[in-house]
Amino acid sequence: MDTIDIINKKRMGFSLTREEISYMVMGYVKEEIPDYQMSAFLMSICTKGMNEEETFDLTDVMLHSGEILDTSMFGIHTVDKHSTGGVGDKTTLVVAPLVASVGVNVIKMSGRGLGFTGGTIDKLESIPGLRTYLTEEELMKQIEDIHVCIASGGKDLVIADKKMYALRDVTGTVESIPLIASSIMSKKIAAGSKKIVMDVKVGNGALMKTKEEAEQLSKTMIQIGKKYGVQVECVLSDMTCPLGYAIGNALEVKESIEALKGNFAPDFYELVVFLASRMVALGLEISLEEAKRMVLENLENKKAYDVFLELVKKQHGNIDEMDIANTSYTVLSEEEGYITSIDALELAKISSMLGSGREKLDDVIDYGVGLWLLKKPGDFVKKGEALIQVYYREKMVEKEEILKNFIIEKERKEISSVVLGYLK
Amino acid sequence: MDTIDIINKKRMGFSLTREEISYMVMGYVKEEIPDYQMSAFLMSICTKGMNEEETFDLTDVMLHSGEILDTSMFGIHTVDKHSTGGVGDKTTLVVAPLVASVGVNVIKMSGRGLGFTGGTIDKLESIPGLRTYLTEEELMKQIEDIHVCIASGGKDLVIADKKMYALRDVTGTVESIPLIASSIMSKKIAAGSKKIVMDVKVGNGALMKTKEEAEQLSKTMIQIGKKYGVQVECVLSDMTCPLGYAIGNALEVKESIEALKGNFAPDFYELVVFLASRMVALGLEISLEEAKRMVLENLENKKAYDVFLELVKKQHGNIDEMDIANTSYTVLSEEEGYITSIDALELAKISSMLGSGREKLDDVIDYGVGLWLLKKPGDFVKKGEALIQVYYREKMVEKEEILKNFIIEKERKEISSVVLGYLK
Repeated sequence: MDTIDIINKKRMGFSLTREEISYMVMGYVKEEIPDYQMSAFLMSICTKGMNEEETFDLTDVMLHSGEILDTSMFGIHTVDKHSTGGVGDKTTLVVAPLVASVGVNVIKMSGRGLGFTGGTIDKLESIPGLRTYLTEEELMKQIEDIHVCIASGGKDLVIADKKMYALRDVTGTVESIPLIASSIMSKKIAAGSKKIVMDVKVGNGALMKTKEEAEQLSKTMIQIGKKYGVQVECVLSDMTCPLGYAIGNALEVKESIEALKGNFAPDFYELVVFLASRMVALGLEISLEEAKRMVLENLENKKAYDVFLELVKKQHGNIDEMDIANTSYTVLSEEEGYITSIDALELAKISSMLGSGREKLDDVIDYGVGLWLLKKPGDFVKKGEALIQVYYREKMVEKEEILKNFIIEKERKEISSVVLGYLK
Repeated sequence: MDTIDIINKKRMGFSLTREEISYMVMGYVKEEIPDYQMSAFLMSICTKGMNEEETFDLTDVMLHSGEILDTSMFGIHTVDKHSTGGVGDKTTLVVAPLVASVGVNVIKMSGRGLGFTGGTIDKLESIPGLRTYLTEEELMKQIEDIHVCIASGGKDLVIADKKMYALRDVTGTVESIPLIASSIMSKKIAAGSKKIVMDVKVGNGALMKTKEEAEQLSKTMIQIGKKYGVQVECVLSDMTCPLGYAIGNALEVKESIEALKGNFAPDFYELVVFLASRMVALGLEISLEEAKRMVLENLENKKAYDVFLELVKKQHGNIDEMDIANTSYTVLSEEEGYITSIDALELAKISSMLGSGREKLDDVIDYGVGLWLLKKPGDFVKKGEALIQVYYREKMVEKEEILKNFIIEKERKEISSVVLGYLK
């Protein structure tokens, strides 16, 4: 087999065999195929696509590039959650302890963020002392005790994805349904997940820009899951506006704690309840109504909050010592009216500029900086009223740069639901 | 400007501005943009294309990445020839002296080959002692004396193309009309050409697989030429079967000498006369009929052959000492009938395997090996009759591997013209 022949074949739009896909992926893992050939190959996949069989073969080849965990000892009442990534998406921090609080095991293997915002692990690590690396023994003990852990993935799962993702990130080859689906599913299957609720984000702040694309990605992941006997359910959720109030690592932990205490942003509440109910229904194999009742109860009685505090304590974190920047300023509205939209992508870039994101894998994140929305779409704002609070250290951002991302209109517009659809 | 944003923009199919194209090309030349980003960018162009303006901008940016020659001192009776490359394409070796023999200046700057066969420079260098690097003084003297030189291009013309071409060659990003057109035209314009006859090859042994693609490439190059006041005329010629009898460097020189003595393969004769007539008509600004008359006359009276011998002598070559492998074997037909097709691409690969091509720029070519067709499409062959002679040194090729590239049928098929079309 010849690397250039395989690249040419995909460039011309032909389907690849499993052997050809394996030749490329494993050749890249073994460093026999250089970055510049792999990036051309990945771009050919981005632009020419892959059919169902190719996507399955790619997933399977990636899956077998590393270790595969057996988590059957945790039983069938175990559910995983995954988000395709959005701005201000701290959902896992609330949903995982909430679902665990009703007795469903949540073994959440998360990643660090690349791009504009931190990943769940980055957010959690903004809690001083918190450890995300757990030994197998610690992990098993913690699941037994509180049904939940949030840990960084083992180093030897899906080795191919680590290398390929880093390359995709710097070569404009991230946005491809077969590449995204195979990356997510190979990691989930390698981590031993048997039931997964996916939060597939849709909008300018997400990988999938349209509902149609999000549905296609969802269907692809559900299909891959079926081949491995893994139940995948997909929630499509809006990502045109940042989720909740906070963008930035420690600020998002703070918002999560507030939410678990009962002080939710409306969109965040809707999404948390929807995702948690689906996870509980799937995990306990009960009706959605019953699941939702249990979820609402454990939010109300603060049992979810207790589990969160337990999780932090067991993973050696100290939430009383969180370091949020003590320098901040508010940006005031220059007009009066109803907020009809807030640009998620642009605010993410601003938060990243303040220091909350990384551009390269070895960049150091400043956990304490970020943005806190004081108004959300649908809210009325007076001239001179504060729209947003900016937490910064050295770098500041011009008020104009922030203001232009808020659209304020005379007429109030109907605020649509954050949950856009559901597939399984 | 940001590299990844520009790659993403082209991946999504948007048009790029001149500034964006310049940022990528010049960034790559200055080694600020690494190979792996450039190859993804080139693949995005291959798959999403470029409109006329982008293609022009790309050509212009590449053109200005190096020196630009002024050849106006040679006057208006100067014509350049270029081939997009084919199997057994030794046309320049015959056409250049032929056109020069009627008084048209032919300053041919050629390249070395990459891929399955050698380039014109490789072929010429198979003549012992022959120098393809000429000083400006030598070049001017030679044009004054015999109207023709075939030289390797100056090192500082179109620096961007050298780097980009080497990368395209190993990343499956060669076959793209905007990339091919900008590469050829930037080099031709930088070399000072004002009148060019292009031999655009069509078929499985060429870059352009269909006549439609070849027409589109031709139109693109003609348009680019117009912007610079350069007259471009394109001859579309068949490349499904190897041109003439020989494939391999010294063998092709030998065939060229035979042709100049009057012993032409029919397809090679047709193409040489067509191209030379067009070049003479364009160079002397006379009618095609008049030009063709002059061309036929100088083939007949061997003046073209004399100019070839002069060229070799002036460039210090010695054709009496050419080294063609003295080990060879013939492959015999296993059936009887009419040859209806001979696979150009596969025979090129076989010749390359024997040692006549290079896979990397620093590979060493064996000038003396290759293939000599003893039969051409349309010929009748008996069982046991020789089809082809294989010149080899260490490596041999199985007869079956060669035989399968000849299609022999009971019924004779009409052999179509080698010239498929003409655009200007």
